[in-house]
Amino acid sequence: MPTRLTAEAELVMARCLELAQCTEEPGRITRTFLSPPMRRVHELVGGWMREVGLQVSIDAVGNIRGLRGPGARRLIIGSHLDTVPNAGAYDGILGVVMGIAIAKECSDVAVIGFSEEEGVKFGVPFIGSRAVVGTAGELVDARVAKAIREYGLDPAQLPEARLTGAAYFEIHIEQGPVLEHHDLALGIVDAIAGQSRYAVTFHGSANHAGTTPMHLRNDALVRAANWILQVERCGRETEGLVATVGRCEEEPGAGNVIPGRVRASLDVRHKLDAIRRKAANELVQNLDAELLMDVPAMELDVTALADAVSQEGFAAFHLTSGAGHDAMVMAGAMPASMLFVRSPKGISHHPDEAVLVDDVEAALRCAKRFVRNWNG
Amino acid sequence: MPTRLTAEAELVMARCLELAQCTEEPGRITRTFLSPPMRRVHELVGGWMREVGLQVSIDAVGNIRGLRGPGARRLIIGSHLDTVPNAGAYDGILGVVMGIAIAKECSDVAVIGFSEEEGVKFGVPFIGSRAVVGTAGELVDARVAKAIREYGLDPAQLPEARLTGAAYFEIHIEQGPVLEHHDLALGIVDAIAGQSRYAVTFHGSANHAGTTPMHLRNDALVRAANWILQVERCGRETEGLVATVGRCEEEPGAGNVIPGRVRASLDVRHKLDAIRRKAANELVQNLDAELLMDVPAMELDVTALADAVSQEGFAAFHLTSGAGHDAMVMAGAMPASMLFVRSPKGISHHPDEAVLVDDVEAALRCAKRFVRNWNG
Repeated sequence: MPTRLTAEAELVMARCLELAQCTEEPGRITRTFLSPPMRRVHELVGGWMREVGLQVSIDAVGNIRGLRGPGARRLIIGSHLDTVPNAGAYDGILGVVMGIAIAKECSDVAVIGFSEEEGVKFGVPFIGSRAVVGTAGELVDARVAKAIREYGLDPAQLPEARLTGAAYFEIHIEQGPVLEHHDLALGIVDAIAGQSRYAVTFHGSANHAGTTPMHLRNDALVRAANWILQVERCGRETEGLVATVGRCEEEPGAGNVIPGRVRASLDVRHKLDAIRRKAANELVQNLDAELLMDVPAMELDVTALADAVSQEGFAAFHLTSGAGHDAMVMAGAMPASMLFVRSPKGISHHPDEAVLVDDVEAALRCAKRFVRNWNG
Repeated sequence: MPTRLTAEAELVMARCLELAQCTEEPGRITRTFLSPPMRRVHELVGGWMREVGLQVSIDAVGNIRGLRGPGARRLIIGSHLDTVPNAGAYDGILGVVMGIAIAKECSDVAVIGFSEEEGVKFGVPFIGSRAVVGTAGELVDARVAKAIREYGLDPAQLPEARLTGAAYFEIHIEQGPVLEHHDLALGIVDAIAGQSRYAVTFHGSANHAGTTPMHLRNDALVRAANWILQVERCGRETEGLVATVGRCEEEPGAGNVIPGRVRASLDVRHKLDAIRRKAANELVQNLDAELLMDVPAMELDVTALADAVSQEGFAAFHLTSGAGHDAMVMAGAMPASMLFVRSPKGISHHPDEAVLVDDVEAALRCAKRFVRNWNG
């Protein structure tokens, strides 16, 4: 006979699967910002919120929120409702469904399902959480406002989407292999890594692959290959750094022409901005490199969450999130904590994305303890 | 006052530029198999052939030929009329125009302008020369036959396109940097290099660039980069070998995803088939590699041409052609010789393709000597 929390964990997973049916593409899970299936998501999530005594509303950008209590020392618990195209069933939505399950333990609480985190619809992520902390103004351009109106909401109400809180808490799947590698159900996120992204161009001379002897070549792809290995070495030699070349495009890109130009991507992340920027600067030194993105790291609160995890008998394992999350935005406005749940095989943004019921139960146990501790 | 041959060299170059006006694309030189501008090419080239007493006809695939003499010990002199898209003014056509200029020196001669060498129109090169040696039958499929009929020719006449000869001679721009590197006007081609082409696939695991630590990655692009450098080393360490990776495509190819699969091209060429195949086999050993092309090398006759070049006071410099030429096809049917003219900066298949008037004059001088020697 399952314990009470096993049944609750199974219910959480069943609800995630039920929400996975709300999709723009039959047979695949795709649910972007204010797309038609979001109405059914609002309906289901709103119903579950009401069941646990939360007062439900939808704000101007389509965030759903369930409130209870005076708001003076409000704990905001949230994650996102939207997905990437052809997604799995747990990324984001797990944290919303679990937020409802643990809200019972808290007398001053808001559970929020953010309408937009992935940035799929307009290429701009975090519209949902940025509306809540009051920094979404610049994001709500004509396209976004049109989408809001078409959903039946009013972009003029954006200021009222703002919600103050004493702290923020988010549960999310890890989307990486670290917890599985350490055989752990849970991880405490110590920071959201900062990111540097560059476009790097290598210049050579496009020439005939048959008629140009090796010693008279200037092969841009050979230069790029040397650099790709340098990026790899830099990542391996710098503790906690990840450095990736995800694409590299040759011009002209024909099998019988020596590449005259190669345009490659560089993505460097670390929880400490100084280390990240030093590594990135070294990797693009003396190269034709364009900085596309420099997002600083965001430190999260670990103490109270580590206490709760330990009290429940689990290892208080800390790790850095290499991916961005709503917690990063919320942490700009209030102390924020984040609990990772193991991702089997590290798979995410893919239909094979999964969670283990034992891990969900462990997360429920620790999160409830965290909320009760908060409640005092 | 210019010598007689300087004026003749200038005339050759002027004729090349005049033919460059015959194009499918205004402002660019693009002249594919039996395209409309080929009619004007036939008209101009035919007129110049008649001026030097050649009897002119167009065969079933659109080759233009000018004949004189009994044909018992016929020297066939030729090159091609067609171009790549956005071509230069000399690739191919220089050898046709010079063929007319030197045909005067020969009593038993055919000058041929091949209608198709580049393979642009149907992805199949050498339709012109293969028709002359009688191996074009398999190339004349429904599409090619349709193009032939639309030009007003009769594909049924293909067998009559065949022409016997005692030897073949072709003058062509080098399309590479070797002669310029050695400060030489001319080169004697000792062989057309054989070619191996492969598609090589590297397998890894596509994962999130932020959430996957370096030691838990399986990055297909890092594997490919190591291999690209191996290809480069192999080329540099093997005398006369050229080895090229011209393209390399990542999947999924996003800046924030570790490449899960990379598909790369490999092009290996050498004048000796054993060396080429050994190098190519080593480079694809233990890899997921698909052989796309294995064209054997073709040896050319160098003795008589080297004698002529030396007699005219030039260095008899031998080099291998890394690119295919009509001479490769013709060498399958009769002894063939080929004279390369320096390509400034090695540029070809590009509007900046050029020749130097002094080099054209040197080529005229040596080619005339070669033809006179042949004539006995």
